[in-house]
Amino acid sequence: MLATDNHVGYLEKDPIRGQDSLNTFREILQLAQQHDVDFILLGGDLFHENKPSRATLHGVMASLREYTLGDKPVSIELLSDPFDGKADGYSFPAVNYEDSNLNVAIPVFSIHGNHDDPQGVGVEGALSALDVLSVAGLINYFGKVELPSTDGTAGRSAAQANDPLMEDGIRIRPVLLQKGGTRIALYGMGNVKDDRMGYELRANRVRMYRPAEEPLSWFNILAVHQNRVGHDPKAFVPEGMFDNSVHLVVWGHEHEQLITPQPVAEKRYCVTQPGSSVATSLMPGEAAEKKVAIIHVEERDYYLEEIPLRTVRPFVMEDIDLDDEIQDANIAADDKPAVTKLLKQHVYGLIQRAHEEWTAKQQRLEDPSHPAERMPLPLVRLRVTYTKHEMGNLVRFGQEFVDKLANPKDVLQFTKKKASGARKKRDENVTEYIDPQAEGMVASEKLEKVHVGDLVREYLEAQELNILNPVGLERAVTSFIEKDNKDAIKSFVANMLKSSNKDLVSMNPDEQQLDVEVSPELRIA
Amino acid sequence: MLATDNHVGYLEKDPIRGQDSLNTFREILQLAQQHDVDFILLGGDLFHENKPSRATLHGVMASLREYTLGDKPVSIELLSDPFDGKADGYSFPAVNYEDSNLNVAIPVFSIHGNHDDPQGVGVEGALSALDVLSVAGLINYFGKVELPSTDGTAGRSAAQANDPLMEDGIRIRPVLLQKGGTRIALYGMGNVKDDRMGYELRANRVRMYRPAEEPLSWFNILAVHQNRVGHDPKAFVPEGMFDNSVHLVVWGHEHEQLITPQPVAEKRYCVTQPGSSVATSLMPGEAAEKKVAIIHVEERDYYLEEIPLRTVRPFVMEDIDLDDEIQDANIAADDKPAVTKLLKQHVYGLIQRAHEEWTAKQQRLEDPSHPAERMPLPLVRLRVTYTKHEMGNLVRFGQEFVDKLANPKDVLQFTKKKASGARKKRDENVTEYIDPQAEGMVASEKLEKVHVGDLVREYLEAQELNILNPVGLERAVTSFIEKDNKDAIKSFVANMLKSSNKDLVSMNPDEQQLDVEVSPELRIA
Repeated sequence: MLATDNHVGYLEKDPIRGQDSLNTFREILQLAQQHDVDFILLGGDLFHENKPSRATLHGVMASLREYTLGDKPVSIELLSDPFDGKADGYSFPAVNYEDSNLNVAIPVFSIHGNHDDPQGVGVEGALSALDVLSVAGLINYFGKVELPSTDGTAGRSAAQANDPLMEDGIRIRPVLLQKGGTRIALYGMGNVKDDRMGYELRANRVRMYRPAEEPLSWFNILAVHQNRVGHDPKAFVPEGMFDNSVHLVVWGHEHEQLITPQPVAEKRYCVTQPGSSVATSLMPGEAAEKKVAIIHVEERDYYLEEIPLRTVRPFVMEDIDLDDEIQDANIAADDKPAVTKLLKQHVYGLIQRAHEEWTAKQQRLEDPSHPAERMPLPLVRLRVTYTKHEMGNLVRFGQEFVDKLANPKDVLQFTKKKASGARKKRDENVTEYIDPQAEGMVASEKLEKVHVGDLVREYLEAQELNILNPVGLERAVTSFIEKDNKDAIKSFVANMLKSSNKDLVSMNPDEQQLDVEVSPELRIA
Repeated sequence: MLATDNHVGYLEKDPIRGQDSLNTFREILQLAQQHDVDFILLGGDLFHENKPSRATLHGVMASLREYTLGDKPVSIELLSDPFDGKADGYSFPAVNYEDSNLNVAIPVFSIHGNHDDPQGVGVEGALSALDVLSVAGLINYFGKVELPSTDGTAGRSAAQANDPLMEDGIRIRPVLLQKGGTRIALYGMGNVKDDRMGYELRANRVRMYRPAEEPLSWFNILAVHQNRVGHDPKAFVPEGMFDNSVHLVVWGHEHEQLITPQPVAEKRYCVTQPGSSVATSLMPGEAAEKKVAIIHVEERDYYLEEIPLRTVRPFVMEDIDLDDEIQDANIAADDKPAVTKLLKQHVYGLIQRAHEEWTAKQQRLEDPSHPAERMPLPLVRLRVTYTKHEMGNLVRFGQEFVDKLANPKDVLQFTKKKASGARKKRDENVTEYIDPQAEGMVASEKLEKVHVGDLVREYLEAQELNILNPVGLERAVTSFIEKDNKDAIKSFVANMLKSSNKDLVSMNPDEQQLDVEVSPELRIA
């Protein structure tokens, strides 16, 4: 079974949506159990936060224990070394079903994403939240992007791989599995920062190890977690970059569901992009029906069985041009009640569409074991472009929809038309980026991240102080909290004290711009 | 096997002492394995931090998996409900060896302490780091201090029990175990805040459930994690407070090793206080030899086998009166080189004593399976009281001992004599307190906690600003980071904004005073 970007813990404090990501992760595990799959392959970002909350870690561990342990014998034999990547100083194997103390029914293999990449330095080196699951015997974390070190000792971690001084290239060692006459080589490449990955690829320094024995007899799956859609030519991995010995690339990170295998120009392999199992942004890429898939492999042939997910909250969206709408409706541009009414009509229309789509889906997926379910509150996004209209007080707009929508607070998104409308269009299908500072970053994620910095800034501003560098503090605090980087604040403060010129660290104009796009509501001046 | 207060993660960033707590925790598990114990009982504070670092969580989980899983059949039958306290919404039992998917050799039962108490509110209620271990099947977390709720539904957690509005009292339900003709009822009471616990005890509202079947046939063990030594009459649990049906009280929280069972005045039960397995403060209570113990129980008789721990770093300390020393040595009080030399002689004397004690211990514990080991760098504390001498520049004092001590930076502790010397004496054997804000708090712990707040304050002060309430921000940030209380900063900011009087929250004078005691070195003005 293939799944990716479960982002468990996304918006976990939200009273309505807080359990969405965990619920769907559980559904995926239940599906794996029902379909009696041989193993599960996750493409990264199992966790939304690099340091998942205790509740999230607890929920994921409980779910894995509930659905992947059991008496069913594991049908896939491990041919590679079960101790490859084991915890240093302990004797148990890295692959959970090779541990006779654990009764594993469905092995879960996972690479890390950009959200759950290894961080921090301990005796064990950089650790990911996936290492915690792995040491608990609940998943098999692979694809740590090991590099051969110069002295021939053990490899280095992804965090070290991100160090531009590392000059060894990337070496990928497969997990080798066999069932009957079918042999699968599972190659994993956990997320590596864009610039580093771009460099490695252009320099042709990424190398995949082949099984020594009958190298042509294997079905080779490669799991990656990188940008696929190119904005910056250096910031994505071209899908045609891989060796033709790969049969199928499982692409994580991109949230849009494009799970049907797509052929790659001038290559013999296909790419399947399962997409996220929870919408972390209200953009078109997230609106496609969420699915997982079972790959059925026989020797080097395969087909992919797509399985729609039932627990995913419905999401509908619409783009409107407010200028046109106002003209068509023949109302005055400054008639705020009329404009508000017009926008509400659109939102009601979207809610109606969500209901129709839900009903249709229930009928389509009809199954005696799953009676039709009542629709949960839908996610609705109305994107409004405008030119010159001063918008009225729409702060209370969402209140009307509190019991009708899962996201009443950000149902509307306003964008002022620009002289050149080209840029917006280019990015509109993009749902996730690697760099949190990147301009296209998912709005809700950004809001989450700036939280603490904003509050400190707000406090200082209220006292008419504006001397603390808010962006720097925000980053330092964010790094401190999310990345377990306890030196971040210290080094930020040290740098600020050293710097006699307070303008050295300036506000990033791109981020400023983003804040406007993020704001769901316009206020009267 | 009895052990408590392992405080894994204590000083984990310290290059010398960082692994001490985990090493000794591993030793304890190895001892349990070697001695083939039936189960392990931990008295709380397995973790030093409420939110253990990823490395610490990883190390504890790996160690538990390594040493407590295995083929040895568990010899103790569970008579109480294995699903009592299980994770909500999941089907696996709360007691790990009742899960047929896990091959448990040595069950570990643990209550929580004040360091690893349940925090936060999720769908599962307040969760402790022990819940994460429990859901991984690695420990059996009991003693969550459940309260009967008014509507008869499931009990409430310790965090809720700390709510003074809870008026239901404390009900303790035992884990019931049997081996041959011996039956053990294991009562656990995880840490509850002092004032609440004092109230419950005085009001006689703590109730222990008795097994219905042959209530007099059980050997009753009660594990608690509270202050035992009384400073404030409301802030400790009198050891004679328990019902005479208890046979043995296992007292956690107090770090001093008093593991030999002590009779309690006018009571029939004894108290064993295993003490911490790592010194978290350099005070007399931590200097006693660290031990764990095996209780051998036969019906209602028992004896306790004490086992000294080998991995514990040696710790020696000495109190000197500088006035007397200077007089005896016949040197001038302002002769700084001579005073420094005198202090160094004392430190060298302590190092010598550590070596002698280490050698004696190696001989005493001689055992073919454990050849004598070389002493690790010792912990040394020289406590110096003085009256009027202006101390010289001792900043570099510790540098001479960098390769000779584990704690060169805080080997010296100066205390200016007070007119009334009574107070200091009273507290001198106290090694740990519940409330981080309490005056006697362990110095190194306090230093760890104030870190972030200090940095922010330092930064603001460097800009000649002193308007931000540093104590409040420190508490808010600490709460935010350690307790997963994401609203702490927000509510702090909100309160500050509301308050027009900036002096409402003032610096706590007790904390100021503490900072002086903490300072390892004196500086010239």
